[in-house]
Amino acid sequence: MRIVPVLLSGGVGTRLWPLSRSSMPKQLQSLLGDKTMVQATVERLPDRASRPLVVCNASHADAISEQLAEIGREPELLVAEPVGRNTAPAVAAAALLAEPHAILVVLPADHVIADVEAFRKALDVAVEAAGQGHLVTFGVVPDRPETGYGYIEVGDAHDGWRRVERFVEKPDRTTAAVYVGSGRHLWNSGMFVFEASEIRSELERHAPEVVTAVDRALADASREGRLLRLGASFAEAPSVSIDYAVMEKTDRAVVVPLDAGWSDVGSWAALWEISERDQDDNVVMGEAEVLDVHRSYVRSEGRLVAVVGVDDVIVVDTGDAVLVAARDRAQDVKRLVDRLARRGRPEVR
Amino acid sequence: MRIVPVLLSGGVGTRLWPLSRSSMPKQLQSLLGDKTMVQATVERLPDRASRPLVVCNASHADAISEQLAEIGREPELLVAEPVGRNTAPAVAAAALLAEPHAILVVLPADHVIADVEAFRKALDVAVEAAGQGHLVTFGVVPDRPETGYGYIEVGDAHDGWRRVERFVEKPDRTTAAVYVGSGRHLWNSGMFVFEASEIRSELERHAPEVVTAVDRALADASREGRLLRLGASFAEAPSVSIDYAVMEKTDRAVVVPLDAGWSDVGSWAALWEISERDQDDNVVMGEAEVLDVHRSYVRSEGRLVAVVGVDDVIVVDTGDAVLVAARDRAQDVKRLVDRLARRGRPEVR
Repeated sequence: MRIVPVLLSGGVGTRLWPLSRSSMPKQLQSLLGDKTMVQATVERLPDRASRPLVVCNASHADAISEQLAEIGREPELLVAEPVGRNTAPAVAAAALLAEPHAILVVLPADHVIADVEAFRKALDVAVEAAGQGHLVTFGVVPDRPETGYGYIEVGDAHDGWRRVERFVEKPDRTTAAVYVGSGRHLWNSGMFVFEASEIRSELERHAPEVVTAVDRALADASREGRLLRLGASFAEAPSVSIDYAVMEKTDRAVVVPLDAGWSDVGSWAALWEISERDQDDNVVMGEAEVLDVHRSYVRSEGRLVAVVGVDDVIVVDTGDAVLVAARDRAQDVKRLVDRLARRGRPEVR
Repeated sequence: MRIVPVLLSGGVGTRLWPLSRSSMPKQLQSLLGDKTMVQATVERLPDRASRPLVVCNASHADAISEQLAEIGREPELLVAEPVGRNTAPAVAAAALLAEPHAILVVLPADHVIADVEAFRKALDVAVEAAGQGHLVTFGVVPDRPETGYGYIEVGDAHDGWRRVERFVEKPDRTTAAVYVGSGRHLWNSGMFVFEASEIRSELERHAPEVVTAVDRALADASREGRLLRLGASFAEAPSVSIDYAVMEKTDRAVVVPLDAGWSDVGSWAALWEISERDQDDNVVMGEAEVLDVHRSYVRSEGRLVAVVGVDDVIVVDTGDAVLVAARDRAQDVKRLVDRLARRGRPEVR
């Protein structure tokens, strides 16, 4: 059984600005440890997986190629999107390119998983289920009433996987608390496993306009070595997630529970949460000096950062910008970046 | 009557790091408005004052010279100290250089006075009293129980000035509150007016070792144009303030009350206090973007500074360093800078 990892590297990771930005999004950065997130995602795969197929923004192809070469894990193919169109068109491109019976393991390139063994065990279950024709999604066992994710309500239990009862939207805090207590709700992780031919036929059924546009983009594609540049018609695909386009509509979705220290590192607060911290509960990286600071994330990429007498803050300094944010307001970094982008600031590009 | 302003520019202003530092202390910076503090100090003088005599660190002589030339107020003389020795030796140098009957107006170059007219009126009174042989200090009418200043307890009232009953050390908070309520206590501002011959004879009486060392430093001085470089023996003078060396010991001290929006801009919090603020009570200067920020001082000297969801903070970015501090911990910036200096960081030089 051929297992083809499909890395999705389309995101920008605005909430991790100023480190993450369009030109160098978080998946290309070393947020945690030495490896970049793309590298860590590939290294997490089991040995029996083939070389990965990477779907990325055209402007990041060189960097991704270099980063994977650095760890001796060159991709099978780099599929460069002329514009981002969310995950359904990206998955469609992979499904149309792969052999029909290949098992695609679709992984966003910007997630962190602490317990690699647990992930690999869940992946074995998922590959097995996908081989039987199921469309598998990983459902993360929630450890807090998170309101930033969609949830999956599970149904009947089978060999390590569950039927999907239904997908539910991001809940309010009260509902989220009920979900966590129910034992029947998992976070929708955005990681999937399915056979190429199966997801292809489901895409044709539920989102034919995606397949049409991607088909044309593949016909117009140009190839240079391992790099496949999709044609301009890719832009005609609707911008839609694979969850919305297929997973929420198909009757073949199943879910494999994952309890492996998963994080999508959705904000500086999330990164603080999963980082190793000192006795004051701080993360202090680079040329930084702190005095009476607690529960904070302080990171410098070069210049001197000095912090005095504040708690629960995020301070991140890059070459051209510095962010200071309350830790519990880390989500609002996106609002700020949107505002800076409207003003044409080069620091957010 | 010849009135000679004596600007003291010896301080470093560590508490206003990273903007203020040894190589470019706060008096050479534009902290408030367009003018640097040295420029503002000179422009605050009445027209009848002579050109100023400036006592400064040798390394700042060029910058001061340029800044005063910029506003067409070249100094009479720039007296360059080879090392800083607090205010008594600096005042002694001015007293020995000036004509005996000149009235010296001694002004630290790093104070802010909002109400120039009120200052000039108080200065008229002080010059008059100094002409009668008094050693005049300005006593600032306190508007809060400040524990960071020494106080002057006033005695009998005369023509706009009062006898000094006694000088009192920096009080604790309770005592400071009593002082403010008493109506008999003023802040010791560090600004003085006296006749050159009078302060000279009082220095000879109360601090002869200061006069001896400064006398030798003047004998060994070298002159280039308006710049007078004091000799190395200046270092032999004890490092002592003019308050301690003379004002607290002489029986000829009098005080002129000053109620003119005075500040010694002793910290970023003090600067926030006296700066014009927006509707959120923020001071935002330079390339800065704030979102849900209140009662804060955010200043960039070039790079983009973005602040989200924090209140009561100081954020100051210079070319090579950024400071983030709680506003009520602004005094502790000095502790931090001391620590950085011990580590040999170039950013504090």
